[in-house]
Parts: sequence; structure tokens; C-alpha cells
Amino acid sequence: MSLKVGIAGLGRMGARHALHFHNFTPRAQVIAASSPRPEELEWAHKNLVGATTYADFDDMLNAPGLQAVVIASATSVHAEQAIKAIKKGLHVLCEKPLSTSIEESQSVVDAYRTSIKTHPSQKVICGFSRRFDASYRDAFDKMTDGTIGRPSVFRSQTCDKLDPSGFFVEYAQFSGGIFVDCSIHDIDLALWFFGEDSTVKSVSAVGITAVSPELRKYNDRDNAFGIIEFYGGKIAQLFCSRMMAAGQEDCTEITGTKGKLAVNTQPASNLVNIYEPTGIRREIPPHYYGRFREAFITEANEFTACCLDDTEPPMRVEGAVAAVRIGCALQESLITGKKIEFDERGERIEKARI
Amino acid sequence: MSLKVGIAGLGRMGARHALHFHNFTPRAQVIAASSPRPEELEWAHKNLVGATTYADFDDMLNAPGLQAVVIASATSVHAEQAIKAIKKGLHVLCEKPLSTSIEESQSVVDAYRTSIKTHPSQKVICGFSRRFDASYRDAFDKMTDGTIGRPSVFRSQTCDKLDPSGFFVEYAQFSGGIFVDCSIHDIDLALWFFGEDSTVKSVSAVGITAVSPELRKYNDRDNAFGIIEFYGGKIAQLFCSRMMAAGQEDCTEITGTKGKLAVNTQPASNLVNIYEPTGIRREIPPHYYGRFREAFITEANEFTACCLDDTEPPMRVEGAVAAVRIGCALQESLITGKKIEFDERGERIEKARI
Amino acid sequence: MSLKVGIAGLGRMGARHALHFHNFTPRAQVIAASSPRPEELEWAHKNLVGATTYADFDDMLNAPGLQAVVIASATSVHAEQAIKAIKKGLHVLCEKPLSTSIEESQSVVDAYRTSIKTHPSQKVICGFSRRFDASYRDAFDKMTDGTIGRPSVFRSQTCDKLDPSGFFVEYAQFSGGIFVDCSIHDIDLALWFFGEDSTVKSVSAVGITAVSPELRKYNDRDNAFGIIEFYGGKIAQLFCSRMMAAGQEDCTEITGTKGKLAVNTQPASNLVNIYEPTGIRREIPPHYYGRFREAFITEANEFTACCLDDTEPPMRVEGAVAAVRIGCALQESLITGKKIEFDERGERIEKARI
Amino acid sequence: MSLKVGIAGLGRMGARHALHFHNFTPRAQVIAASSPRPEELEWAHKNLVGATTYADFDDMLNAPGLQAVVIASATSVHAEQAIKAIKKGLHVLCEKPLSTSIEESQSVVDAYRTSIKTHPSQKVICGFSRRFDASYRDAFDKMTDGTIGRPSVFRSQTCDKLDPSGFFVEYAQFSGGIFVDCSIHDIDLALWFFGEDSTVKSVSAVGITAVSPELRKYNDRDNAFGIIEFYGGKIAQLFCSRMMAAGQEDCTEITGTKGKLAVNTQPASNLVNIYEPTGIRREIPPHYYGRFREAFITEANEFTACCLDDTEPPMRVEGAVAAVRIGCALQESLITGKKIEFDERGERIEKARI
Repeated sequence: MSLKVGIAGLGRMGARHALHFHNFTPRAQVIAASSPRPEELEWAHKNLVGATTYADFDDMLNAPGLQAVVIASATSVHAEQAIKAIKKGLHVLCEKPLSTSIEESQSVVDAYRTSIKTHPSQKVICGFSRRFDASYRDAFDKMTDGTIGRPSVFRSQTCDKLDPSGFFVEYAQFSGGIFVDCSIHDIDLALWFFGEDSTVKSVSAVGITAVSPELRKYNDRDNAFGIIEFYGGKIAQLFCSRMMAAGQEDCTEITGTKGKLAVNTQPASNLVNIYEPTGIRREIPPHYYGRFREAFITEANEFTACCLDDTEPPMRVEGAVAAVRIGCALQESLITGKKIEFDERGERIEKARI
Repeated sequence: MSLKVGIAGLGRMGARHALHFHNFTPRAQVIAASSPRPEELEWAHKNLVGATTYADFDDMLNAPGLQAVVIASATSVHAEQAIKAIKKGLHVLCEKPLSTSIEESQSVVDAYRTSIKTHPSQKVICGFSRRFDASYRDAFDKMTDGTIGRPSVFRSQTCDKLDPSGFFVEYAQFSGGIFVDCSIHDIDLALWFFGEDSTVKSVSAVGITAVSPELRKYNDRDNAFGIIEFYGGKIAQLFCSRMMAAGQEDCTEITGTKGKLAVNTQPASNLVNIYEPTGIRREIPPHYYGRFREAFITEANEFTACCLDDTEPPMRVEGAVAAVRIGCALQESLITGKKIEFDERGERIEKARI
Repeated sequence: MSLKVGIAGLGRMGARHALHFHNFTPRAQVIAASSPRPEELEWAHKNLVGATTYADFDDMLNAPGLQAVVIASATSVHAEQAIKAIKKGLHVLCEKPLSTSIEESQSVVDAYRTSIKTHPSQKVICGFSRRFDASYRDAFDKMTDGTIGRPSVFRSQTCDKLDPSGFFVEYAQFSGGIFVDCSIHDIDLALWFFGEDSTVKSVSAVGITAVSPELRKYNDRDNAFGIIEFYGGKIAQLFCSRMMAAGQEDCTEITGTKGKLAVNTQPASNLVNIYEPTGIRREIPPHYYGRFREAFITEANEFTACCLDDTEPPMRVEGAVAAVRIGCALQESLITGKKIEFDERGERIEKARI
Repeated sequence: MSLKVGIAGLGRMGARHALHFHNFTPRAQVIAASSPRPEELEWAHKNLVGATTYADFDDMLNAPGLQAVVIASATSVHAEQAIKAIKKGLHVLCEKPLSTSIEESQSVVDAYRTSIKTHPSQKVICGFSRRFDASYRDAFDKMTDGTIGRPSVFRSQTCDKLDPSGFFVEYAQFSGGIFVDCSIHDIDLALWFFGEDSTVKSVSAVGITAVSPELRKYNDRDNAFGIIEFYGGKIAQLFCSRMMAAGQEDCTEITGTKGKLAVNTQPASNLVNIYEPTGIRREIPPHYYGRFREAFITEANEFTACCLDDTEPPMRVEGAVAAVRIGCALQESLITGKKIEFDERGERIEKARI
């Protein structure tokens, strides 16, 4: 039996999710799709053959037979839509972040933990795509096998290709800031590699606006560094940028007491090298999708499998709140210039001063 | 409308083809599968839900609605099965080689050229998977764009991981020899990059049995070098081996008057580097499928598309005969130690002396 | 005419400097060498043929014809010896750091600025070897040529191979701490690439003792991250470690508004790759000398040339004080957990709280 | 005591050898230099301070105290000059090749074997610089340690950067052809890695003139492939070219029954990577000297040491004749199109047909 899936939001990433489920997830069937934008519904008519389209998300939730919802709408409605779907007992795969607000993110988790009492097989995950990436998984497995001893030092970056169109400036109004938008992935990886129970001791961040000074009006930056200190002798360093010339440069290193695992520190689009009078050159993916397409497809298949088979999903939705919490703290530190400290229960030692 | 496909042969590669069409080719539908082996039919029952199974290939050809056949059976029956399907007017995707015999390979082409007169939309291709590989295509496109000037020098290798089980020795009885089995891919690439109309001027080859002296009883070798000289100032160098320690090492370089394109000269399984007391290490794919899985899926999708849309397939089946012809000449040279020469019409200047 | 050089200190690095000047610096002549350790003087007798040896540094300063002194003794006497040599009007190449104390470092500069009034051709430099490394110079030249636009984001690390002997613990008593000992190089590079006139706005650091908890008794750590914020929209991120499994891992990235230059992000001892059943492996240098030997020889030759030809040395000694000042601030932040801020004149905004 | 050395020939490579011995070989002293060209002698006056210059090679041989001669003159006089020096009992380091003629090469060896009877400490080597390269030595040592099992398959290339000036065309008159000029290095490496006692069974070669058709008037080509078959189950494949866009591309792979060693298959000038809108780029050395400078300096130092200490030189001069013999056979095969076969004593089975 196929999992009957509805897709909420058919923008750039929503359309991709829809096609992954429609074409490359054998056990899933896209039966519904919703969007407030007529042209996106038009697209769905052509490309998601067999799916019913809805201008209204709430209507889609009543689609006959619907079992699962993929939420890929605007970030601002992620939480609201997720909670509605959860309350209906539907499985939910929500794009990251659940919300740019910690409280709202937590409300999704709360809704799920309430609902699961009456729907014990219900699955809710937040789509941190790197968790499904073959290279990250290989690194994680090698770490778990003891290859690097005790993991202690984490370095990770999410760096976007320079987009001279100004897209990122307008986007900054809603993105939650560069640490919530980009580094959220690195933060989630840190929690994965160091353990979900890792407790933050402090965060600090600095940043600049090297190419887009207009970002300052939205309290954002185009390049930033962050440091996270965890209780138990673990530290993490983050770099996020909107200014990469060559393309998307997302890489991670996890250093342990006996070795190191590096993921994508030598990025490449494919296996081609070009020998020219200026030297040897390789291209790199221009966007995150070029790097992570396979991971998104794996995500669709594994989400489907855990819903159909009632198995444990690869990560707990609580982690998404923890990641937003850290991302927001880093963003705050970036703007205020203050180091933010937490006690061992995870409570802030001083009040936010923003 | 989906393309209704039957899979002939459900061994290792047949099963993979079946799953690619069944799960990852949205426009295709696997409606039939045949194998003489009951356990493989059993596998099909479980994994190709909706497909009817046949112990006999001929019976499968009568499956209602069948439009296309994928031939992934033993090499020895490729040509016979292909011809039968062609004569029924079915589209055919035949695994490489069409046959280890030049004449038999040609008979497939002949059957197709006869059949197409009455079935003008019929498609027949031989599955040279590298033609569908994203990196090879990128290199080809860059060459076509003039990046390297006039392509003149070609170097390519197909080198299998050392398999201490002795598999390759028994396999050598039927494989046609290492140049027909492995280098056929490199030869096809040379014809693709240099142009399908390239005419061979000479071939020479040498080889050894470094790890499997038993191969000599089947007139085969475990490592060999070959040189192909083309009319028009083009040369190609091949290396084939069954003795790679680290894994599958297939790479290609095409050098032109202004630059060079290299594909997979720095092989890697994924994007992970492992830092250990012995240095920095990366793993490489153990088998060709680890390297070319995506290409096989693209092959399935593009074959399907050209059948449904009646568009030109990405390569002509005649090329498969040309490749076998060169592979057989290299294998002969490998065994006799003689250089083999051809005139400008492609005719051998001296008779084979094998 | 050769430059007549005396070497102060003949320990591991002192002996190397001595041989670089003796054997590989055609325009220099090692005429004197001093060490308090008899076995080192014995070594000098054998290996520095023609040089007179001195148990006492002060005596060596009176060596007839002496023109220049290379100070490679214990860090604790660097400044004292440098000042004595400066006061004699001798040229001085002093190993880094001038001192682990800012004030003492400054006193070397003060002595030089006084002396140069009466010895206008006198040269004094602090040996930041990376300034003489061909790769760093190539990167610097490319940056200067505009290849990357305006340099804005700097990332650099100095990471030593894990030494299980406990050497680093005892060494920590005198080293000034990991930021003064290791990161001083990265700080100097930041000042070089961002400009010597760059003014620090803030520093923050965190660290752990993953393998050597005993370091805490000397207020040191074995892994640390630091962030430096400069006035004028520039930021730098540092990583220092004593725990690398594979060897010395020193690398740097400088990102500008149009591109990035990376130095040694794919370290390798040489041009060999080893293909084994576990994959493809390369070795990396075990120590900084394996990485920077050629740079040290270039340093010896260029120092000699600027003394003999009365030309500008490649860097000003004032930079060494600036680097120590930043290194000490990072080390303080590492231990106190406080972010340290500076005003635009470089004055600390709050008093140190250590 | 220093080795008193005379340099014969002060052209591009002669001047480099002279400086290596003068400046970077502590145990050697350049006391003499000869050249028929006045401007080169002028250069020597300025750059080889302390050396006497000679317009005539024969006169230089009478320089008082002369112990060793480095022959870097035109290839056409290598053998004659070497023999004269040998007959005087002098140590000789002769640039490769001894001669482009096998017989003349052999005459140098003969002279040495006669002379050594009366000068038992005399050393004569032919300067195959790669034997002194740190990476090749590391690979050789790893092979000897058993890392790759029994070495069986060798692939090597010497490929020059495209030089549009036409230099290579004029040079081809005297070079002996591309296999004698370029591949001689690869052939020497094959003999080193497979063992000096390896006996050639056959050679074959093909080539083209892709960029310099004028080469045909000198019986040369600008790109060629060769295969060497050795008795005892070993094969080698060579590629030589004058058409590389990116720079000098010399690389070697030696494959054994348990692994492979690759030298410089990922060439790079230095440790810099440049990230630009077109991707990630690295530069490579434009000429062999950029790749092998350190090897030449090691050669100078080791030649000096074996002369002074009467120790075994790192290779026997007989190897240089063996390499020329194979190079000439490949060049002949390249032009005639015939495979050339040898019996187990190394005698040609058929007469040359050129």
C-alpha cells in the first residue's frame, strides 16, 4: 500500500518535494497539493498527475484518504500548518525551520506530543536534509564505529553562492537571520554528531555586511562566525556566508581524540577536471539543491517508510527546537555583540539584552 | 501514458534494471519479467509488484500491451532475444555487449534496420551506461563547446577491484575476453568523443596474468594495455585490469589542442575524507554499480522517454557493433602479439592469424 | 661579501636555522654560535665548520666581525638577547614570539626604534616563517592583484599532530598558551592579509582539554576556537589544536567579495597517493618543519639579502607586537570566558578580569 | 674538503646545475665552467664567483685540482665530453641522454668500465633527475616495503606544456625524437621500479602531429603512446606530449598485485586553491624545472657525496644505455608503425626496417 501524501506549498522547494514524492518515492502517492498561488496549482495539474489541488491548506487536510502532509510553504506558516495537520492525526514532514521563533517551534512539538497519545503511530519530523545525505551518514557511522575516538571539536559551514540580484536582502525579513536560515543545518549536525542531549554552555558570534549593507536594516549580516561551547568538553565553530564566488560551499569537520572526519572540504559538482592554460579547474554546485538532491529523495523515501511501517524516524522533532534555540541565540549574539551563557539545565544565565 | 516494459533476465544486473524501471522511472511500468531461474521469478513476485513473470522469454514477448523489452540476460542470448523482440516491433534496450561476436552483433543491427522500415518509431539501443553518466556528459558538452580545441588524444581505463574468489576466471569463458568485457566501455567512449564515424587504422595490445594465471586457458589476461590508432590523426590508449586493490577505477582523459578533460581521475565513493595516524584516506566504489548507478537510472528514463515521445535515442545501435569489432581486434592482438591494421574503409589489411 | 652571522641557541630549531644559514644561504657565513648546553656546542663544532662557539651569548656578541644574530634560544630569553644585540647595532632575526609578554615584546621594538636612529641600516625582524612560504606568497599576490575582490573573511588554523609523550603539557608552562604559541602564526597572517594597520574590535575564545586535562594547571587547553573582529568590516576565525591524528594541519582561507584563496586545505607530504584495499591514502607532514622547511631557508636568504643590500625587510617588527597582543587577548578570553573589546585606537574598553 | 667541480655548458640547464652546485651543495665548490658562448661565460663571471671560465671544454679539463665534471652542454657533445673527462679519471655527472645514439651511449659506459680499472673510486652517472625526487623515492621505498605486492603494471607520462613558439620543431632535429627526449625519463623509471635487469620483449608505438605537422620532416610527432612488454610478466605504457595546456604533466603509476602507487596524478604548483565564479582552480608548474628543482639539487648533493665518500651512486650508468635503447626502439616503432620484438637476451628478433 502506498502512503497517501499531500504537499503544502509548491514554490521552488515545494515543487521539488512534490516531484520527489511523486516520481522517486515508489511507496508514496501524491494525492493532494495546496498553494495560494494559482500558477503553482496549474503546475501541479501538469506535473502531479492524479493529485487534487487545493487553494486552501485547510481544505487539503480533508482530502479523502490523506495520511501524510509535507509542509514546504512559507516559513511563517510552517508551524500553524504543521499543528493543524498534527491535530488531524496526520504524519508530517515539515521543511526546516519549524519556525524562526523558539516558542512557536516548541508549540509544534507540544502538539505532536499531545496528539501521539491518541495516535501512537503518528510521525512528525523536521526536514534536516543533511541527515539523509550519504556522505554525512558515512561520516556518522565511522564516528560511531570509533574511527576518530571521542568526538570533541566540530567545524561546519553553510555558505551560499553570491547572488547579486539582492534576493537575500528581501528574504532576510523573514528568514530569521543568517544563523537561523543557514547555520541551522550546521547546528543540527553538531547536535547529531555530539549527541541530541548536548547542552549548550555559551554562544558568541560576529559578522559583517561585506556585499549587502542593506541587510543591516533587517538585523542581518552576509558573513558571520559563531562559536558554540557545550557542557562536557565539546566545542563547535560555525561559518555562514552569502558571498561564495564559486558556488555552494557546505562542509563539516568532526575531530575526535584519535582522528578526524571531513565532509565536502573539497567540493565538486561532478567528477570532471578541466585542464586549461590557467590551470586545473573543477566546478562546484551553484546551490544547495545541486549538493543535496539525493538526500531529499532519501528523505522522502525514509519518511514514507517510517509512516507505513510504523518504525522510528531517523530523528526526533525535538531536535528542531533545540537547533532553532541555538540559532536564535547566535543571531542575537551577532547583533548585540554579547556572549550568551546557559546553565547546565539549558537556562540562560543573563536575560537577553536585545 | 506509461511505457509497458518487460525485463529479460533477473540476475544481478537484470534485477537492478528491473528496479530502476519499476521504482525510479515515472513514465515506465514494468508489466512483465522473465528468467529461466525460479528463484529469480520469486524475487520478481515480491519486488516487481504488478508484473507478470515468465519462465520463458518467448512467452513474455506475448504479454498483452508489452511495448519495450530490457535484455539483461546472459550475454550468450543477448542477440537472439534482441532479434526476437525487434521482429515483434518492440523497443529494445539491450545490455552491452550485443554479443561477443562481431557477426552476431551485426545481425541485431540488421534485424533492426529491416524492422524499422515497417515500425518507423521503433527504438533499439545498446546500454553503454557511461553515455548517461552526468560527468561524462559534462565532459562531452565542454568538448563540444570547444573548451579543449580539437580532441586528439584519448586515454581510458576500466579496472575492476581484485576479486580473490576466482569469479573472473570462470567468467572469462563467456566474457569475450578483457577487452570485450571491460574495455568495450572505453572503446565506446572513444567513438563518442572522437565521433561515431572514426575509422580505426590499427590496434595493438599486450597483457599479463599477474594474479590469475588460469585465465590463459581461456585466452584471457588480467591486465592489458591497448593502443588504437584512428585515421585522421587521433590516438587512444586503453588499460583494463582485474587487479585494483582500492576498488573500481574507471577514468578517462580526452586531450585536445587547447586543453584536457579528465573524468574520475581522482575517484571517491563520496565526499568523506578520513584523517588517521596513517594519513588522509578516502574510499572508492568497490564495483561499477557504485560508480554508475545514477547513469543506469538516467538510461532507463531516457530510453523510456524516447520510446514514448518518438525522439532520437542518445546513441545509434550501430556503434555497439563498431565497439565490439574494435574490442575483438584488441583481444586478438593481445593473444597473438600481432598488430592489426585496417584500411580507410575499415577492412583488415591482413587476415586474422589467430 | 658574506653576512657574518651568529646563531644564539642550538636546540631543535636553532640547529636548523644554523644549517640553513651555513649550507643553504650562499651570501651568509655562520661565524659564531652560542648555547649554554655543551652537547649543542659539540654539535656546532662538527656541523658548523668555521664557526666559533660560545657558552655565553654575551661573549658571542663580541665575536670579531659579527654583523647579524639569529635568536633561536628559549622563548624566555628572546627579548633580552634581542635587545642586547640591537644595542650593539647588529641585525637581528628573532624567532617568534619576541616574548609571551606584550610589554617585553614592545621593549624589543622600542630598543630597535632607538638604535636605528644611530644605525640607520640596522634590520630587526621577527621570524614569522609563513611570510616566506611560496604558497602564502602566491595567495597574497593573487589577493593584491584583485583576484578575490576586497578581503573580508579570514579563517586559519595551526594544528599540531597529537604527541602522546606529554611534551606539550610541560611546554605549556612557558609557551604563553596555545593562542600565543600556535595561533600567533594565524594572527600574523590575518594582519598580513588584512593589512598591518588593521585594528581589533573584539576577541572571544573557547577551548577544551580533550586529551591533556593536565594542561589546565598551566591555564592552557589542547583545542581552542577564537574569533577576532576588526574595525572596518573584517572578521577572522582561528582554530588551534594539539590533537591532529594525521599530522600537522595548518591551513588558511581568505574570502573576499569576489572569490576565495585557500592555502593547504588539502595537505600532503608529497605527490604520492597510495591505493590500498582500504581506499586511497596520502600522508601529511608530521610537524611544522616538514611543511615549512623551504620557507625557513627563504627567510635566511632574504634576511641576509636585506642586511647586505640595506633594503626593506619583508615585514616590520612592530607586527610581532601586534600579533602577541592579539594572541594574549585570545588566551585571556579562553581562560576567563569573557569577550574582550577594544576601541578604535586599540585600547581595551574594559579592564582585563583575569 | 669540498669536491672541486667544473660545469660544461651554461645554457638554461647548465646554468641551473652550476648554481645548484655553487649555492646549494655545501660540500662542492665550482672552480671551473666552460662554454663556447661568450655571454654565458660572462654570466659565469658574475654568478659563479671564484670559478675560472673556459671557452674550450678541453682546457677546462686541465683546471688545477678539478675532480668532477658536470656535463650540461648540447646533447650532441655529451658523449664526447663525458669520455674525455672519464679518460682523465674525473668523476662525471652527465645530463640525460648520454647520446641519442645507442652505440655512442654505450661508448661512454665502455670508457668508464675501462677507466675504473685504474681509477677504482671514479663515479660516472647519467642525470635522471626523477631518481632524486622525494615523491618518486617515497613511492619506490613503499614498493620495496611490499605495500603493493609484486609490481606488474607501469604507466607513466612526460608531457610538456604547449609552446606555440615553434621551439620544439627546431629542437626535434637533435632531440632523438619525443620518445628519446621525453619518455626516456619514464623508461628509466620503469627500469628502476621493475628492476635494472628487466628485459624488453617488445615495443610498439603510435603517434600524431596534432599541433606541429612540421615535426614530420624530422620524423617526430607531438603526441605519442608506447607500450613496452617485459619478459617475466610486466608491462608498461607511456604517453609523451608537447601539447599540454595547463603545464608540465609528468605522472607515474605503478600497480602491483596488492595495490598501486601514484606519483603526481594530481599535479599542482603549490598549496593554493583559487575559488572563482568559474569554480575552483589550481595552477601547475609550467616546465619540468618547476616540478623537479629540488630533485636536481638533491642530485648535486648526492653526486658530490658519493664522489667524496667513495660510496655507491644511486644508479649505474649502464641503465642510461638501456633506456636509450628502449627509447630508440619506441621512436622507430612510432615512425615505421611496426612492433619490434626482442629475444630473452635482449637481441632484436627482426632487423630494424627504418
